[in-house]
Amino acid sequence: MKTAELQTPALIVSSAILDRNLKTMAEALPGGRCRPHVKAHKTTELAKRQVEVGHVTFCCATVKEMEGMAAAGLGEDLLLANEVLDTTRLGKLDARVTVAVDSDETVQAASSGGVREVLIDVNVGLPRCGVSPEDAPRLADLARSLGLSVRGVMGYEGHAIGLDDEEARRSLTEEAMDILTKVHGEVGGDLISAGGTGTFRINTWATEIQAGSYALMDVAYAKLGLPFELAVSVLATVISVSPGYAVADAGLKSLGMDHGNPEIDEGHQVMFVSDEHLSFMPSAPVKVGDRLRVLPAHVDPTVAYHSHMHVVDGEDVLESWGVDLRGW
Amino acid sequence: MKTAELQTPALIVSSAILDRNLKTMAEALPGGRCRPHVKAHKTTELAKRQVEVGHVTFCCATVKEMEGMAAAGLGEDLLLANEVLDTTRLGKLDARVTVAVDSDETVQAASSGGVREVLIDVNVGLPRCGVSPEDAPRLADLARSLGLSVRGVMGYEGHAIGLDDEEARRSLTEEAMDILTKVHGEVGGDLISAGGTGTFRINTWATEIQAGSYALMDVAYAKLGLPFELAVSVLATVISVSPGYAVADAGLKSLGMDHGNPEIDEGHQVMFVSDEHLSFMPSAPVKVGDRLRVLPAHVDPTVAYHSHMHVVDGEDVLESWGVDLRGW
Repeated sequence: MKTAELQTPALIVSSAILDRNLKTMAEALPGGRCRPHVKAHKTTELAKRQVEVGHVTFCCATVKEMEGMAAAGLGEDLLLANEVLDTTRLGKLDARVTVAVDSDETVQAASSGGVREVLIDVNVGLPRCGVSPEDAPRLADLARSLGLSVRGVMGYEGHAIGLDDEEARRSLTEEAMDILTKVHGEVGGDLISAGGTGTFRINTWATEIQAGSYALMDVAYAKLGLPFELAVSVLATVISVSPGYAVADAGLKSLGMDHGNPEIDEGHQVMFVSDEHLSFMPSAPVKVGDRLRVLPAHVDPTVAYHSHMHVVDGEDVLESWGVDLRGW
Repeated sequence: MKTAELQTPALIVSSAILDRNLKTMAEALPGGRCRPHVKAHKTTELAKRQVEVGHVTFCCATVKEMEGMAAAGLGEDLLLANEVLDTTRLGKLDARVTVAVDSDETVQAASSGGVREVLIDVNVGLPRCGVSPEDAPRLADLARSLGLSVRGVMGYEGHAIGLDDEEARRSLTEEAMDILTKVHGEVGGDLISAGGTGTFRINTWATEIQAGSYALMDVAYAKLGLPFELAVSVLATVISVSPGYAVADAGLKSLGMDHGNPEIDEGHQVMFVSDEHLSFMPSAPVKVGDRLRVLPAHVDPTVAYHSHMHVVDGEDVLESWGVDLRGW
């Protein structure tokens, strides 16, 4: 099959770039040093490629992702790196299941749902989830008192990861990991789980890095000077051409927009995005029927709009993978 | 079933408000005067409610929506109010199919795909699709020469529809419709199809109004002083509470973000939205496990993330409808 035969908009992934990104990470952080986060790609077929280069431990963000990974035979060591209260589905999985906890309620939920292992999620500076560092040892004791095994700590330096300035990223990461390693000393366990694509080289304190975006990348991450290339784009068709601008058929329902407008390959300038349309100023003449590659500003919420990702080599579609971990 | 049993995040719709919105529109623009746009709700069960109040003509934005509406028995008069080149699926539908055209290529595609009726889509000021007014008669002639029936003209005053200032909305709509009615005089046909929720009262020139958002509404439309109420929200669970802020489990994969942050019922202040999380400053104490209703800034790209919408009366879930028109 050729890309010209794909119904647009279509999520496409360069096979060669994906392979390079996976290989680069596997060389930098082999095996369990990287715990790939599936939330960025939501695709078990892609996770299998990550297994092929040596990673067998995975991070998930939703119960649905945990279920899907277990069902795909990828349940050797699954971490739900998020707080959940509805744990009954987790307790039933045929997989090694570890859950992040940051409160009495989430510890209780893990215990009552049949989960056996937890990580203490510690607030390291991002105003999101995570128990305060001072309260972490008490929470670990509570978990153990309920029969849960505490595998260690988790802390996400999300306030550092997207910073353009690598030195700022480094110093904020160091501050965050100072907190986390201190708490780890008090809580115990084998794991210090932290980091992401933006700090995979910087964060040398974590025993494992939770990186997701590196596999497919996006326009925002591509600006951080990382050794990963943009592998994903949204294939679109030019459906209308007027003097000075043109319109392609990739709109708001095919692109995560929280990081702003996408870019377009070949230097066309995006004007605005509507529900079904992308209006742009062409850098060179385009005609109705031309295909464009639209480069998403943020990979995670872009992928979540698509039922499939098509793995391509130039104009050849090699495989079409179901984005099978969508939903909750 | 109770809303407390719903897995969150979950798209919920107030049955009473939905009914009121549908009734208000059906009274203002009865029958064919409103051609409801399904792109905003992507749900054939909701479209059936629109039929119940008297609308049997519908607008779609994608081939998938056309197929789904026809398959649901709602194909009495379906307009694809968008330009498409891949028309073969349309030609096979068991429905009355009309397609918007704005170029020689889209006219040719309609003809070769077996479509029999078209509307000439005219640029009335929004830099998106639409043939120039001067070229519209020639395009209509081309369509007729290929055996297509030209049902009239279409023109979307999208640059006016979202303006807060009702007088500006009115004057821009008038300018746009001056163009469209003039072209209609040259092109002929029964239909002048235009407008949307923001101009449904203002646009008195169109023979039919393409309104979609009025059924469910969103935070942006709620600011325009329209007689429709917000019917849709994303039910979320508080999963973490820290001093000064808390986190709910509705993130970027459950909310269209192009119009900015959502709001939260009960006056909680949104701080930021992450892939899986909504960090907010509570207006009153919240605890882990509390449920919140997150009000989307933009309905269309929000609905497109969800596989189902749950129709509720208070805490009772009356029905769960598949959002069956997603994809392309």
